[in-house]
Amino acid sequence: MDQKVYDTGMKIRRQVAGDAYVDKAMANLTDFNRDFQRIVTQYCWGEAWGDDTLKRRERSILNLGMIACLGRMEEFQTHVRGALNNGLTPNEIRAVLTQIAVYCGIPAGVDCFRHARPIIEEYEKAKK
Amino acid sequence: MDQKVYDTGMKIRRQVAGDAYVDKAMANLTDFNRDFQRIVTQYCWGEAWGDDTLKRRERSILNLGMIACLGRMEEFQTHVRGALNNGLTPNEIRAVLTQIAVYCGIPAGVDCFRHARPIIEEYEKAKK
Amino acid sequence: MDQKVYDTGMKIRRQVAGDAYVDKAMANLTDFNRDFQRIVTQYCWGEAWGDDTLKRRERSILNLGMIACLGRMEEFQTHVRGALNNGLTPNEIRAVLTQIAVYCGIPAGVDCFRHARPIIEEYEKAKK
Amino acid sequence: MDQKVYDTGMKIRRQVAGDAYVDKAMANLTDFNRDFQRIVTQYCWGEAWGDDTLKRRERSILNLGMIACLGRMEEFQTHVRGALNNGLTPNEIRAVLTQIAVYCGIPAGVDCFRHARPIIEEYEKAKK
Amino acid sequence: MDQKVYDTGMKIRRQVAGDAYVDKAMANLTDFNRDFQRIVTQYCWGEAWGDDTLKRRERSILNLGMIACLGRMEEFQTHVRGALNNGLTPNEIRAVLTQIAVYCGIPAGVDCFRHARPIIEEYEKAKK
Amino acid sequence: MDQKVYDTGMKIRRQVAGDAYVDKAMANLTDFNRDFQRIVTQYCWGEAWGDDTLKRRERSILNLGMIACLGRMEEFQTHVRGALNNGLTPNEIRAVLTQIAVYCGIPAGVDCFRHARPIIEEYEKAKK
Repeated sequence: MDQKVYDTGMKIRRQVAGDAYVDKAMANLTDFNRDFQRIVTQYCWGEAWGDDTLKRRERSILNLGMIACLGRMEEFQTHVRGALNNGLTPNEIRAVLTQIAVYCGIPAGVDCFRHARPIIEEYEKAKK
Repeated sequence: MDQKVYDTGMKIRRQVAGDAYVDKAMANLTDFNRDFQRIVTQYCWGEAWGDDTLKRRERSILNLGMIACLGRMEEFQTHVRGALNNGLTPNEIRAVLTQIAVYCGIPAGVDCFRHARPIIEEYEKAKK
Repeated sequence: MDQKVYDTGMKIRRQVAGDAYVDKAMANLTDFNRDFQRIVTQYCWGEAWGDDTLKRRERSILNLGMIACLGRMEEFQTHVRGALNNGLTPNEIRAVLTQIAVYCGIPAGVDCFRHARPIIEEYEKAKK
Repeated sequence: MDQKVYDTGMKIRRQVAGDAYVDKAMANLTDFNRDFQRIVTQYCWGEAWGDDTLKRRERSILNLGMIACLGRMEEFQTHVRGALNNGLTPNEIRAVLTQIAVYCGIPAGVDCFRHARPIIEEYEKAKK
Repeated sequence: MDQKVYDTGMKIRRQVAGDAYVDKAMANLTDFNRDFQRIVTQYCWGEAWGDDTLKRRERSILNLGMIACLGRMEEFQTHVRGALNNGLTPNEIRAVLTQIAVYCGIPAGVDCFRHARPIIEEYEKAKK
Repeated sequence: MDQKVYDTGMKIRRQVAGDAYVDKAMANLTDFNRDFQRIVTQYCWGEAWGDDTLKRRERSILNLGMIACLGRMEEFQTHVRGALNNGLTPNEIRAVLTQIAVYCGIPAGVDCFRHARPIIEEYEKAKK
């Protein structure tokens, strides 16, 4: 295991997905998922996100498009939250979702607006 | 037909995909594809790209992720060219493709690097 | 905005998806989804469905296949209802779903039968 | 093997895909693909297409949507030919492809028009 | 209908998916799904699984990968249960899921671990 | 970089994909793809394949199903070669492909048989 990449990954994962999300993932470690969680942190957050060639808000935009297209809507919601944490406004997320609808098709767009809405509302409520 | 949205779309389409690409598309209009080309310009380039909430380089990043995930690799190459036209450097495109590999899987990543490479080389040659 | 295409789209959307569905969508408009709902009505229902080259029942059959394949199962249920509204019988929908299973694979087929069933039962109950 | 379903399937396969296509498939049988070709004929053409609940042109429309969405573009071209054999006009196929673009996304639509075009042209040439 | 292939299929289906699952499917037969259930048993379980060229545990591994990739997660859970019935240990299933994450992307991997976990826990509880 | 995982990965990659394939990949390294190739070797071949919980032939079977489903057919051909290197016979590969056709749909199956055939023939020729 590459400890340095892992540590970078863990730090970024907490900043983007939020401490609550990561604490829950860590509290739920079992023999079944422990190694996979290590891989997620090291490769996904350490290798990909840890390369600062792109801005975090750019990585969030990229992720929203890919995860919408893949149809993994629980992960999509996590990354709507991440996009807000990375500074995208609800109006910018709206523009991302419209582009998703045009490129991935209207049913994907409808599904994205449906899943993003409660996350946006939760965020706007918390801001007040 | 909404002429204003169409005209905005045509202008942006030429800036991003390049005049050569669009001239070829326009020269190949037939009864079979004329209305579809109108819809692409109006809907995709006018409605989605015409909304300047996002920066063009952000829309390029989003498109690379979605089109890679959809596996439409000829369109992917067009949008690698578009990304260069929108100011992304080859190194930034590399970082986008690595993130695609992690989120859409290694075979998608391999396919993206394979298809992006000749476009990047053509661009670097032209720059000299 | 092309008002005429929008109006055609809204009329067809109400006929196919049903007033209840559309009224609910309209009642839930916010700054976040308003423009997207306009695009859905204008492009999807106005441009695509508004072209009467194909019969409505043919467009329903096409949609069931595509939306099943895309795996957007809530939208799929809306279009099973739409197919019934467009005159397909439960037995014709069964034949569509069997063809989906053969071309998109057995797991897609199982998922389609599972999601179509309550819509079909609701329809048959209402008919009595 | 269910000989009756197989025979029905073979007959329909020849009518839809054309004798040239099927003769070529049969001439290329090896130990590697023989059983698979039997399954295609029996299951796909016998079971699905052999049920006359739907019209052949309806099954063609359904197939174009699914196979476009699956991104299997060589098969897509075979089924554009099949759609013409089943009586769809080029203008009807155009309408199908526009609906595909709206529901499966613009890149899928572009790819479909690109792959359908030579088949349509070949057909219109042969008609003269 | 090919009774012999059907009977082989039904026997294997019961061994892999379990009597509880199949009894429920059979108890829920209606005019809407009866023929489809026959096709599932005959083609999927009779034709594919009935060919003993591959070991059952190999077919389970193959299915986990395909069904994960297709994103049909209820079916995926059925086949996690099937994999346990075919002798895969939780640790072997873990290794399959990690490979899925690498090849189909991290969001697919996260979704698989999430859906597999309750099935694995149910199995380990029952074993005690 | 985790050198030990990388070295394990490189060794397995050579055994499965073949020296010719890997030598070519290494000879084609540029600033654009160097880091990605490192990630492929470390993450895909080191982390996933380097875990010997599953047999190599089992990993090949899993990969054939996933990569077929993803529609990345050049990678699919590489892994048909890999499956032969890992000891699967052409007849076993045939059985894998038939199961792919049933679960991922007939068009995927047709595409797999089409792409596997030249690799199988090349292998059988070389064996003589």
